[in-house]
Amino acid sequence: MEKQKSAQKTKKNNQRRKPEVKKTSAKNQKRSRTLVQQKTSAPQKGAKKKAPQTSPIKFIPLGGMGEIGKNCYLYAYKDQMILVDCGMSFPDEETPGVDIVIPDFSFIIKNADKIKALLVTHGHEDHIGAIPYLLKNVNIPVYGTKFTLGLIKGKLDEHKLLGTAKLNVFSAGDKLKFGDFTVEPIHINHSIPGAVAFAITTPEGTVIHTGDFKIDTTPAKDKPIDLTRFAEIGRKGVLCLMSDSTNAERAGFTPSEKVVGDSFESLFSKAGKSRIIIASFSSNVHRIQQIIDQAVKTGRKVAISGRSMQHAVEVAEELGYLKVPGGTLVEIETVKNYPPERMVIITTGSQGEPLSALHRMAFGGHRHITIVPGDMIIISANPIPGNEKLVSKVINELLKQGANVVYEKMYDVHVSGHACKEELKLIFNLVKPRFFIPMHGEQRHLVKHAELAENMGINRKNILITDNGKAVEISREGIKYAETVTAGRVLVDGLGVGDVGNVVLRDRKHLAEDGVIIVAFACDSVTHEVISDIEIVSRGFIYVKESEDLIKELNELCCDIIESNYSGGRPFDMSALKIKIRDGVSKFLYSQTHRSPMILPVILEA
Amino acid sequence: MEKQKSAQKTKKNNQRRKPEVKKTSAKNQKRSRTLVQQKTSAPQKGAKKKAPQTSPIKFIPLGGMGEIGKNCYLYAYKDQMILVDCGMSFPDEETPGVDIVIPDFSFIIKNADKIKALLVTHGHEDHIGAIPYLLKNVNIPVYGTKFTLGLIKGKLDEHKLLGTAKLNVFSAGDKLKFGDFTVEPIHINHSIPGAVAFAITTPEGTVIHTGDFKIDTTPAKDKPIDLTRFAEIGRKGVLCLMSDSTNAERAGFTPSEKVVGDSFESLFSKAGKSRIIIASFSSNVHRIQQIIDQAVKTGRKVAISGRSMQHAVEVAEELGYLKVPGGTLVEIETVKNYPPERMVIITTGSQGEPLSALHRMAFGGHRHITIVPGDMIIISANPIPGNEKLVSKVINELLKQGANVVYEKMYDVHVSGHACKEELKLIFNLVKPRFFIPMHGEQRHLVKHAELAENMGINRKNILITDNGKAVEISREGIKYAETVTAGRVLVDGLGVGDVGNVVLRDRKHLAEDGVIIVAFACDSVTHEVISDIEIVSRGFIYVKESEDLIKELNELCCDIIESNYSGGRPFDMSALKIKIRDGVSKFLYSQTHRSPMILPVILEA
Repeated sequence: MEKQKSAQKTKKNNQRRKPEVKKTSAKNQKRSRTLVQQKTSAPQKGAKKKAPQTSPIKFIPLGGMGEIGKNCYLYAYKDQMILVDCGMSFPDEETPGVDIVIPDFSFIIKNADKIKALLVTHGHEDHIGAIPYLLKNVNIPVYGTKFTLGLIKGKLDEHKLLGTAKLNVFSAGDKLKFGDFTVEPIHINHSIPGAVAFAITTPEGTVIHTGDFKIDTTPAKDKPIDLTRFAEIGRKGVLCLMSDSTNAERAGFTPSEKVVGDSFESLFSKAGKSRIIIASFSSNVHRIQQIIDQAVKTGRKVAISGRSMQHAVEVAEELGYLKVPGGTLVEIETVKNYPPERMVIITTGSQGEPLSALHRMAFGGHRHITIVPGDMIIISANPIPGNEKLVSKVINELLKQGANVVYEKMYDVHVSGHACKEELKLIFNLVKPRFFIPMHGEQRHLVKHAELAENMGINRKNILITDNGKAVEISREGIKYAETVTAGRVLVDGLGVGDVGNVVLRDRKHLAEDGVIIVAFACDSVTHEVISDIEIVSRGFIYVKESEDLIKELNELCCDIIESNYSGGRPFDMSALKIKIRDGVSKFLYSQTHRSPMILPVILEA
Repeated sequence: MEKQKSAQKTKKNNQRRKPEVKKTSAKNQKRSRTLVQQKTSAPQKGAKKKAPQTSPIKFIPLGGMGEIGKNCYLYAYKDQMILVDCGMSFPDEETPGVDIVIPDFSFIIKNADKIKALLVTHGHEDHIGAIPYLLKNVNIPVYGTKFTLGLIKGKLDEHKLLGTAKLNVFSAGDKLKFGDFTVEPIHINHSIPGAVAFAITTPEGTVIHTGDFKIDTTPAKDKPIDLTRFAEIGRKGVLCLMSDSTNAERAGFTPSEKVVGDSFESLFSKAGKSRIIIASFSSNVHRIQQIIDQAVKTGRKVAISGRSMQHAVEVAEELGYLKVPGGTLVEIETVKNYPPERMVIITTGSQGEPLSALHRMAFGGHRHITIVPGDMIIISANPIPGNEKLVSKVINELLKQGANVVYEKMYDVHVSGHACKEELKLIFNLVKPRFFIPMHGEQRHLVKHAELAENMGINRKNILITDNGKAVEISREGIKYAETVTAGRVLVDGLGVGDVGNVVLRDRKHLAEDGVIIVAFACDSVTHEVISDIEIVSRGFIYVKESEDLIKELNELCCDIIESNYSGGRPFDMSALKIKIRDGVSKFLYSQTHRSPMILPVILEA
């Protein structure tokens, strides 16, 4: 499979070229499932007596454990490996200036020849965002549903990798064989189309990797999660469950996507003569479909604002995930031509991102949309932890412009894409795993999910909480920690991948705190006498024009330090002088201001 | 009253020196209330026919409107003014390196001779934190309850202002007269002892300023809010209500502080042989009292960790707000001498602050406390918006150490100090104001509170949402916006007050994003030839040791730019050359790295 060269394959091409990918048509479904059944049912009984032809399965998380982000998990059986997801995470206040954070690929690169495939659960950034960076290192074939691959293609195009990447489409129910691995994608519900879980079968047994999921019995535009298939596989025996822990702290059941549609219906009717502006996640195509449906029903046109929203709508429409009646979509430039009661604008910015379309609308920086009193603005999303203040700023500003902003939970304008406790419990009921590893969550979520598993009757010693790089060995005998492999984060800043490390970050944080002071002068390379003025440059420290006295005193201090260290023409230790200047200036400024800017002495020999 | 010089007064002294402060003993209560009644009951009927001896009341917010923080409100009647609260707010990602944010005092300084008093509702930082900065400008007499003044004294001591400040203690029920103003503090419930609302009476009528409050019918260690007094004043007629909007988005009733005590009781019993560590706000003395009570009941000693917690416990004990049986408190250094089941540690760090005691415990940096598996850690607080990630980091780390961390709402280990919708409605019922101004909240809270007031039957035109600096005129005739005065924020960084402005902040953000590059060289002051190497210094941009080629290319580029601009010895425009270097270097680095560090050319003439 690794020898395939073509990218941008059509589904037809894929079927012809990939003999290992068995499309599950009605005809062969039974046969292939029987095949799987034989392999997985065996391990569950009397395993200890069997000949040792099988080997343990290794589960090696490289991202996504103890964090929400950069999901990346390796499964190994003997000398064969498959990779599940390859996501990114977003920088925080600890990584100023960084664009994105990706997993450390060292272990993958070292084992590149063993890795048969990258299987992708769904198209969210924290599951696909690092794929271009991975493929630049090792060109592993990528497998995903049509929509997931559609989003991946967009990324690969930006990185000019579309020509070389090996993309392979699958559908839920397919059986994908990679050496001793058989992988079956199972349809689940999430806040994006084309999301799947994986049942991963080896001669040792089957494990289920849920990916991100929720149980939606009335998804607005999707099929409900294939609980039957979870039940069937569960009945045959599942060695280990790896399950989404994002909402493991939340009681109850995540509400259905249909609830949001119902809210839209009543809000559209309340809106009356007002313009409606709705911010949501661009990849939530079913949400967008619900908005478009309401718009069509109430005779409103739809305009799309924000680059990622426009891209998502295009991809979704092209691939048939979004149905938009002709004449419904209008260009954002033409919004002014329609009366407010005939317009819905779907926009990015639900997280209050400073460059997003909604933010620009709020602060008067949008080229085509000016908020007017009476506009109904619906924020169809909850703030992701860390974004609360950004979202609040946008809401406050929109309210100041006189808009009617709908954001509270009471209106049910958003539902989560992740399973809450009751759903997680249902999955335990159906899958009946012997072992359990909570994944996709911070420590607090993993711990809660482990407690839940214990309450569901799984023995505490059969539950392992692991960490990025900490491999787990799963066999019919038991579950245990195995070796620790290289795992961690790599920072991407502009074109640089990994060149921003702790030293650079520490300096950035120091510069952000108190700014920088440069003390520069030239000295004679022979006599070492100072032959220029001492120039003092300051940025981010103090407003110089209002602090002339301080700078003057600083200049005098530097003169004194340099003079008292003058070597009388003999060779002298320039580093030592620099340290003296740094310490002297630092001490002086702290005494005067209680601030500690970065001091950079520059001595030029002329 | 303005002539008083002494600070650190005892209560006795205060009573002797302040003839205007009428202590409300049982004896004189009736008389003084009658006095107020005569003044306030008159305006409510036939106001238009009366002689114009009265004048409108002006309400001038200088902080606290459209924000949660730096509360500072002026009330003016004719040429007399009183100030209510003088708080600070905390910096955010928009103000890197800043320590605290205080209100702009220009308007207060301009009107210093008119301002009779600073009346403080309670001792939280967002109500008292800017007092030292105010008193350095204008030494207005300060009035507060015993506990509030205790906390203010601590601040003034740090700023060496205790010798000059004029501090005056009052109790709920007192009548304080300042010219035409009569102010009556009313006991309310909040998350700190000694918190009051103010009924402010002028010849024009009475307004009620709630301060921060909740209605607690079973406060753990406090008296319930004096609803009777609100009712009495309300019956006499209230012109305008200014009320706390913090929780105006939240339905229902804020649970009682007693609920937390009940949770502590059951958690202490669950804890068994485990050590208990509880993080909370240091000023929440009633919470601390409940912890100490449980400790005493279960035979545990109590140790206090964290400077602000230690200070608060000292002040509270000294002033009689905290009752600690002898032998209960032990030094934090001695914790190791007690078995875990005999120990409770009360600590700071409930907001995940990186330098706090709990953070240090979590990350192994606490000198006396090492977390061990089984420790029960209770975070008796909810994250303040913006602190969610910090709190999560600490929780995750404590869980990794094997601690049992209790933080969910399900355990009721924290309740809010602010009134929810049903409480706000009750206050409307009792106070029956003619006009309403929501205060203490972001725009979203003010808007929700205004909607609530409308639902309570207050005419929309009698409700004004205002902003910092936007004065409101309140009279028997109506309520309307008046002039706009200088208001805003002043940034405090180290010893500098107001010297960090937009230029400095912009530079700090730029430096944090991509770091700084310094290009320095010396040239002959006569021939203008370059007479030194070109030195390139970089910080926060790239790890130089791994980027030698880039720096080398950069050096060559600079040489080229300088050479091609060489004037041949004629005088040349140094600024123009600097701009050329800046632009050239910037363009080159962006093309190579897609980053835009700050470029600082330094040319020394030798």
